[in-house]
Amino acid sequence: MKIFDSPQKLQKELFGLKCDGKKIGFVPTMGYLHDGHLSLLRIARDKSDVLVASIFVNPTQFGPNEDLDSYPRDFKSDEMLCEKAGVDYLFYPTNEAMYPDGYSTYVDEHVLSQVLCGRKRPGHFRGVVTVVAKLFNIVMPDVAVFGQKDAQQVRVVQQLVRDLNFPVEVIVGPIVREVDGLAMSSRNTYLKGDDRNRALVLNQSLLLAKSMIESGESNALNVKKAMLNKFKHVSGISVDYVEIRNYDTLDEIELLDGIILIAVAVMVGDVRLIDNIIVWN
Amino acid sequence: MKIFDSPQKLQKELFGLKCDGKKIGFVPTMGYLHDGHLSLLRIARDKSDVLVASIFVNPTQFGPNEDLDSYPRDFKSDEMLCEKAGVDYLFYPTNEAMYPDGYSTYVDEHVLSQVLCGRKRPGHFRGVVTVVAKLFNIVMPDVAVFGQKDAQQVRVVQQLVRDLNFPVEVIVGPIVREVDGLAMSSRNTYLKGDDRNRALVLNQSLLLAKSMIESGESNALNVKKAMLNKFKHVSGISVDYVEIRNYDTLDEIELLDGIILIAVAVMVGDVRLIDNIIVWN
Repeated sequence: MKIFDSPQKLQKELFGLKCDGKKIGFVPTMGYLHDGHLSLLRIARDKSDVLVASIFVNPTQFGPNEDLDSYPRDFKSDEMLCEKAGVDYLFYPTNEAMYPDGYSTYVDEHVLSQVLCGRKRPGHFRGVVTVVAKLFNIVMPDVAVFGQKDAQQVRVVQQLVRDLNFPVEVIVGPIVREVDGLAMSSRNTYLKGDDRNRALVLNQSLLLAKSMIESGESNALNVKKAMLNKFKHVSGISVDYVEIRNYDTLDEIELLDGIILIAVAVMVGDVRLIDNIIVWN
Repeated sequence: MKIFDSPQKLQKELFGLKCDGKKIGFVPTMGYLHDGHLSLLRIARDKSDVLVASIFVNPTQFGPNEDLDSYPRDFKSDEMLCEKAGVDYLFYPTNEAMYPDGYSTYVDEHVLSQVLCGRKRPGHFRGVVTVVAKLFNIVMPDVAVFGQKDAQQVRVVQQLVRDLNFPVEVIVGPIVREVDGLAMSSRNTYLKGDDRNRALVLNQSLLLAKSMIESGESNALNVKKAMLNKFKHVSGISVDYVEIRNYDTLDEIELLDGIILIAVAVMVGDVRLIDNIIVWN
């Protein structure tokens, strides 16, 4: 495995491989890798000849009061995990290499990124879309794999690819969960004491929603009410949102029909967690 | 010369050539080609193995009260001129191909695009930067040539390339002028009657500025005053801006030192014209 910190050098090397007919697979991450990331690396590995991963805690997608400084980092462990997962190129740039002095260009998606997490985290998706555009230009992947855990991010990146004509196939990897159902996240490491147990209610609320729909419930409001009721009975939790939307447009829906995204974001203590499920009805 | 209207098909074909080791040269235009464009095509031809031109009157860079509908178009003439100039691939997409239904992603440069024309044409540079990002992804040029006539556009595109890591070399072609000094522009075709003569004052004001600086004037305000005075003596002209700025940062300067951009934008009747000169001092 080769490790690059220079965007220009990686770009040059990977372009050479691409022109030799190698299919480039790419998994962008913020590091502190867990089994969720590793599942994405496996998908990319299967779809490509050359596997590229990036580890970059992207400052532009964090708000001023968010956890940029405390975001968990462990490069030595990440390096080992990437090596084991068959990564050929690990891109590990500095902030200065990605956002040099006088940096002033940003990419915005103006529809899908306005709802859900976008409403609570202004500027978050600008940061995501901008860094993904940069990484796509640097890596020039044929295939890029993103996790369904960040469902809105997936939709926004798919829109970026379509709108700006990136020749990249976006593949979505399913959510990987702990044995007890908690969706894997680097932020789970923040959960202290009882909060780890309380956090199970995210997945439980989604499973409740799914079973209601499978039992014939067709009114989104009823499902939402039942989910909110579930959260109400767990102490130390404050709901940021519980939303039921069309997965394609991210529009709110009343009638449970089509491909449905059920997404939740809650504060467990002072840790913000998100989770979601997609239901075809 | 092959003509493509499909972004995807052109992208695929050019990528194949690029991987065969061909150097791709690119000149994006809005058509209605004149000698200015042809000079850019010559530069790109000399720097590349495969010459690509695009003709696309980009709707997103026109304001609601601007001349999108009346902007001059003549595809048959453009096609002939491109053929003669040695263009290998002419990209001539529809609005629908470039901005399909549900389009929602835009690229913004937030510093250089805020001054000069950006102040008077809100949204203009968003449109320019977005379409250039799209075109770069479609054509994947090694070299792209832009005209110095649109000096601010040059700086904004250079910033786009640097910030978003496009592997493209931007080359700037000098302004081409009519025999009497008027900078060539597709919009010159709008100039009726005496306005064509009045328009000469743009270039004359720039030459005055240059000669003042070469004679030792070091105060930008004095040069600006002299230029404004020149415009005052021509009827039917209203000045949009006369600006003296550092070419690199586009910051206003007082002391005439370094690489200096002197830029003017004026309304001649109801036609908006721009011109500029770069002076090293």
